[in-house]
Amino acid sequence: MERAFDTQLEDLKRQILVMGGHVEKALTEVTTALLNRDEVRFAGIRDIEKKINDEHIKVDNSCLNLLAKQSPVAKDLRLILSIIKINTDLERMGDQTMNIAYTGRDYLGRKPLVQVADVSRMGEIARRMVKGALDCFVRGDVEHAREILLMDDQVDELKNSVFHQLAAHMKSNPGDVEAGLDLILIARNLERMGDHATNIAEDVIFAETGKDVRHGGLS
Amino acid sequence: MERAFDTQLEDLKRQILVMGGHVEKALTEVTTALLNRDEVRFAGIRDIEKKINDEHIKVDNSCLNLLAKQSPVAKDLRLILSIIKINTDLERMGDQTMNIAYTGRDYLGRKPLVQVADVSRMGEIARRMVKGALDCFVRGDVEHAREILLMDDQVDELKNSVFHQLAAHMKSNPGDVEAGLDLILIARNLERMGDHATNIAEDVIFAETGKDVRHGGLS
Repeated sequence: MERAFDTQLEDLKRQILVMGGHVEKALTEVTTALLNRDEVRFAGIRDIEKKINDEHIKVDNSCLNLLAKQSPVAKDLRLILSIIKINTDLERMGDQTMNIAYTGRDYLGRKPLVQVADVSRMGEIARRMVKGALDCFVRGDVEHAREILLMDDQVDELKNSVFHQLAAHMKSNPGDVEAGLDLILIARNLERMGDHATNIAEDVIFAETGKDVRHGGLS
Repeated sequence: MERAFDTQLEDLKRQILVMGGHVEKALTEVTTALLNRDEVRFAGIRDIEKKINDEHIKVDNSCLNLLAKQSPVAKDLRLILSIIKINTDLERMGDQTMNIAYTGRDYLGRKPLVQVADVSRMGEIARRMVKGALDCFVRGDVEHAREILLMDDQVDELKNSVFHQLAAHMKSNPGDVEAGLDLILIARNLERMGDHATNIAEDVIFAETGKDVRHGGLS
């Protein structure tokens, strides 16, 4: 029984890593598509998101079954609850990449704006955050998980900078209002993805230590 | 033991309703503040959000304890997992009202735009959605929960309409770019709140029926 439980937990972890890989892939695709003006990459996001959604339901079902049949306690229980939350965050990240793909395709129909480089950088940091958070999850690495929380500040700073630059540009160049709006919405999606990666890092800390670092409980 | 479990479940439900009440209140405050240009109401959102965050941690802890000590199965287990997810959604809704309050205060420093009326309507629908979803949660009312899912379309349609109107207005009136951006970001926050209310309705259906209606599984 004990061995079956451990095997099932390992399977669950693997499934979460597969989902994380899809999210990373989707982030790479949307940031590359934006920079290279490559509409085909945007079109491919739907397939990736579908895989994420399929895994999402499978992971939730596996967690429910594990809880019902094994009645885990203490750290095992915290781990499964963390997996349920991480699963939700990864699924929402998939949704966000779909939003980016929709808006991104509109953007490609407009005049390019230089701020797209910063937006793309936001995507790259968000990708590193989700990769880092899931590495921490697998290794139970609390210290590095705390570093992930700090990376979110970089995403937020870039977003603020992009917002201010674009607002000023749109004011002086009303013909670029739509393109600017597209980039602002994409930047907002990426900011949200940074938030989800932050949630994952917080869940890792909780699973490992039992400490709730949300709502300013970092120290 | 059984009775203690039921009592604890009822307590949890009550806590969720209290959080939902805070979210409703926050939504009423931000939509009223936008319409009446009332900065004081925006300032009050932080206190409401703090209450939501406090409840969030308490509910999570109670769920963890219930799972560890009572090892519930079947519908009781589904109910607790749903509560964990609803708790997360309500907390995120609190975050969104804080975002709206920040952007809303900026907006009040600018020239008013007529589109604020539609944005405010979005907030009112989102408020009715979260109220409705939590009513369904308490009553275990699956049929009405399905209706809540459809209300989200109204929020999305209003958002699309507001986006198009504001983009056109900003193009013709570059001096209103900042005010337009503020309303677009607030509309996006409210759209997201509609999504969270949708998640809650889906969780109610899952808790009651065991059916997963996410990712197009409505029928």
